[in-house]
Amino acid sequence: MSELDRIFNFIREIDKEKFIGRQTYLTDGEHKENDAEHAWHMAVMTVLLSGYANEEIDVLKTITMLLIHDLVEIDAGDTYAYDDAGIETKAAREKQCADRIFSMLPEEHGKKLRALWEEFEENKTPEAKFAYTMDHIQPLMLNSATNGKSWREHGIHLSQVMNRNEHTADGSKALWEYAYENFIEPNVKKGNLKK
Amino acid sequence: MSELDRIFNFIREIDKEKFIGRQTYLTDGEHKENDAEHAWHMAVMTVLLSGYANEEIDVLKTITMLLIHDLVEIDAGDTYAYDDAGIETKAAREKQCADRIFSMLPEEHGKKLRALWEEFEENKTPEAKFAYTMDHIQPLMLNSATNGKSWREHGIHLSQVMNRNEHTADGSKALWEYAYENFIEPNVKKGNLKK
Repeated sequence: MSELDRIFNFIREIDKEKFIGRQTYLTDGEHKENDAEHAWHMAVMTVLLSGYANEEIDVLKTITMLLIHDLVEIDAGDTYAYDDAGIETKAAREKQCADRIFSMLPEEHGKKLRALWEEFEENKTPEAKFAYTMDHIQPLMLNSATNGKSWREHGIHLSQVMNRNEHTADGSKALWEYAYENFIEPNVKKGNLKK
Repeated sequence: MSELDRIFNFIREIDKEKFIGRQTYLTDGEHKENDAEHAWHMAVMTVLLSGYANEEIDVLKTITMLLIHDLVEIDAGDTYAYDDAGIETKAAREKQCADRIFSMLPEEHGKKLRALWEEFEENKTPEAKFAYTMDHIQPLMLNSATNGKSWREHGIHLSQVMNRNEHTADGSKALWEYAYENFIEPNVKKGNLKK
């Protein structure tokens, strides 16, 4: 197989990311988001919001990380943020998918994407921390835009949202504060998030 | 309105791109692609394929261009590649949307994204040409993966595909040749594209 055959086999394979559903409703309040839409949205957000990062970030690296970080869900599926049982087995399921999917690529590309995925998971570099901030603020924004529909359906408490966002400010204090004031607080007042 | 209010109003607005349907079937041969999924797929492709560009390209600029170039379809809708009547009014409809949508952003951001969209449309720089190549090869790949389903449904001729791809090699000769040999030729042999 040629290098291009391997790259295009991977490109065809990752089409499956468009079928991995998330719990977040889109702004119409009817359709739920999929992983590819989510990644696209966060990539555009990074173009516009990188200046609000706590530390200077490499924008291309951050965007690439966000574009590929959910590919491991092609086999592992999306684990809902508040599914405690699912979260226990998440890491093992995702690692298995990473082994399979990144090895489809020519070695250099496969290593690069895998390293970016691992960097995202470890959440230590400025880029990983900012990507984490995007990954948490984007669904807060959509949940708020749909009057907390997904939160209401799952009976989510404010404390769960706060625990889940314990590290969201690590990538951008300014964006976390904005999200808290605009996407979380008003939904507590409206009763969309339980106290 | 604060700068962040304007940016987040835009971020919420572009959620609508996820509802702009294209004629291309996804690899399951049942669901059709939307603009956000399409943009995400091409952005990942650019990460993997930029080395095949005819001229050296700025990868971040090319990816950003691809991420935002279809936002004008939020008001204008997707115009099918082989819809001749629609193509006549496409430019005017898209310009009107560009005026509205990019002016939602703080001036500096709005100017930057609008300039990138215009650069894509003019198709003269190495980045615009490579983005054009991605924009044409990605649906060829999906059409081929679904045994030419969309081509068959619309009774598309090889000559239409060749005309539409007159400039696809301008961004990458190697990728155009690969696409021709792997995505077009086999579908002519199978009768999925009419001679």
